[in-house]
Amino acid sequence: MSDSAFDLSCPLPLRHDTIQMAHGGGGRIMRELLEQLMLPAFGNAVLDARHDAAVLTLGGARVAFTTDTFVVQPRFFPGGDIGELAIYGTVNDLAMGGATPQFLSCALILEESFPIEELRRVLASMRAAADRCGVAIVTGDTKVVDKGHGDGLFINTAGIGLVPEGVDVAPRRVMPGDAVLVSGDLGRHGVAVMSVREGLAFEVPVQSDCGPVHHLAAALIHGGIDVHCLRDPTRGGLASVLNEIATDAKVAIEAVERDIPVDEGVAAACEILGLDPYYVACEGRMVAFVPVGQAEQALALLRTLPEGRGAAIIGQVKEGPAGAVMLRTRMGTQRLLDLLSGEQLPRIC
Amino acid sequence: MSDSAFDLSCPLPLRHDTIQMAHGGGGRIMRELLEQLMLPAFGNAVLDARHDAAVLTLGGARVAFTTDTFVVQPRFFPGGDIGELAIYGTVNDLAMGGATPQFLSCALILEESFPIEELRRVLASMRAAADRCGVAIVTGDTKVVDKGHGDGLFINTAGIGLVPEGVDVAPRRVMPGDAVLVSGDLGRHGVAVMSVREGLAFEVPVQSDCGPVHHLAAALIHGGIDVHCLRDPTRGGLASVLNEIATDAKVAIEAVERDIPVDEGVAAACEILGLDPYYVACEGRMVAFVPVGQAEQALALLRTLPEGRGAAIIGQVKEGPAGAVMLRTRMGTQRLLDLLSGEQLPRIC
Repeated sequence: MSDSAFDLSCPLPLRHDTIQMAHGGGGRIMRELLEQLMLPAFGNAVLDARHDAAVLTLGGARVAFTTDTFVVQPRFFPGGDIGELAIYGTVNDLAMGGATPQFLSCALILEESFPIEELRRVLASMRAAADRCGVAIVTGDTKVVDKGHGDGLFINTAGIGLVPEGVDVAPRRVMPGDAVLVSGDLGRHGVAVMSVREGLAFEVPVQSDCGPVHHLAAALIHGGIDVHCLRDPTRGGLASVLNEIATDAKVAIEAVERDIPVDEGVAAACEILGLDPYYVACEGRMVAFVPVGQAEQALALLRTLPEGRGAAIIGQVKEGPAGAVMLRTRMGTQRLLDLLSGEQLPRIC
Repeated sequence: MSDSAFDLSCPLPLRHDTIQMAHGGGGRIMRELLEQLMLPAFGNAVLDARHDAAVLTLGGARVAFTTDTFVVQPRFFPGGDIGELAIYGTVNDLAMGGATPQFLSCALILEESFPIEELRRVLASMRAAADRCGVAIVTGDTKVVDKGHGDGLFINTAGIGLVPEGVDVAPRRVMPGDAVLVSGDLGRHGVAVMSVREGLAFEVPVQSDCGPVHHLAAALIHGGIDVHCLRDPTRGGLASVLNEIATDAKVAIEAVERDIPVDEGVAAACEILGLDPYYVACEGRMVAFVPVGQAEQALALLRTLPEGRGAAIIGQVKEGPAGAVMLRTRMGTQRLLDLLSGEQLPRIC
């Protein structure tokens, strides 16, 4: 491994000497940290696949394995809480690897003086969410840090699940001609959290979409769709997912603004908050890449489930230019839907 | 599940309303949190087995799964650093489940303004440790929290590994007559960390024992020993491990002070620091419970490996009283080696 700027086999130096909030924001700066520090340090074929979940062979079984930490502020928001997020987030990452989620770990970092009653509430919420998803929390860890050296509660969940025979869902399978679907309207989670944080009161408060998408993934996989790739648009939202996939699969993606579902309340809140809904985190949505000939069938399958009622076909994968994501606007023009440099929303999950 | 002496169906209330440092200390108060809050919230048969690693059946394979978070202060100490700890800690927990460690996740919580150069050092250290153990870091996550709401760097690693056919290493298998072995001298890690924290300079600085024990576990398992249980004495040290096992297996344990290896430097430092070495964390030691008839053979197997050179038979499992751990002192008397109430050493791992 080398880190020199002058060596062609290796990445440019990072543009910061210290960690910035943007390093956790899901945008370009976070991607740099990943590509220039994490991947070179740990690099191996599985990690390099850049998938939400690693897919491994273990004793003849194909096992998906993933990890996610939750640091959201506030911990309770309209439509969910940090405990639910911690379960759904990891269940969803496993599902995005084509796996049936099965077992989760739970590791807590508690700050001294955190109220036991709030912990109890969060744990109950995790249990209810786990039951809803049919997963069990089978191993855990608890650490306590001194007051002033944490932030109440951080939760890490790792998860494992089985990938059924013949299922191969991965960024490298995305190809020109694929249709792009979303499972519902976008940006609810980010707006719900930001509204609380900013103390905004809307007539009808926006509820987070926080929820599991593994049934949606299973509906496609077991419904006969040759699913090329799945990803949940969390940090950085839809725009970041499309950019990541376009880059990793070396394709272009065209999204059609008219077809992208955004709730009116979310759109209004985004205007007030100065946010672009395409970059706002969801926590219960799925983006699917499927062969264009199966797009309508896939849409119908998603819509059979309550959590997929708002599903839509929103775009298409093109030959090139590799890594480019274009948005066809309502006015018929095209604009680049680029990866943000930093982050719109800190500590959203 | 019940933990109360007075009520058969439901636990006593916790003795605190808010989280104390002791809730992370490995002693009685931490055990209460676990038994009265975590286990009732998540309770299932696998979790109730109270093992360092959960052992699961996944697609016909027996898979061990574990998680651990590392919040040690200082992050660099004589003999190791937080990165090594994060790898060895999880590798060791898998090995304590009888598994061959294979894949790890890495989830970071970075505090805004953390130096990138230090992160690079820690990641390199993790990679070197992973290579040494033959495990790959295959999935990860990075979160950033605002300055003042974290403590530089917290690392969570979860891990998975295969449990070989026929291997059943678990607390419930510990029985009267078992011999208790340790793989080396005790208390080095805690003393190494505390010395730095307290600014103590010893003539010969105590080095942490921070290291992997999976080869030691494998030596016993593949050497024909019917290993009943394995555990690494981290938070709360040897005394806590013996107490946990005695309680969970409903047996008594007698340890013989004369036979418990403690380095002179560690003993001296413990005197200065006011610590009892039997309660001080190790991060590269293993406690093994094996049939007494195989104890000498097990000892010989451990001593064939460099990391087991200091192995010793230190005690025996007795019929009862269930949960009691007795220490036969050098003077021939017996004293109770009880679980500490709180913690001796905060943030030791």
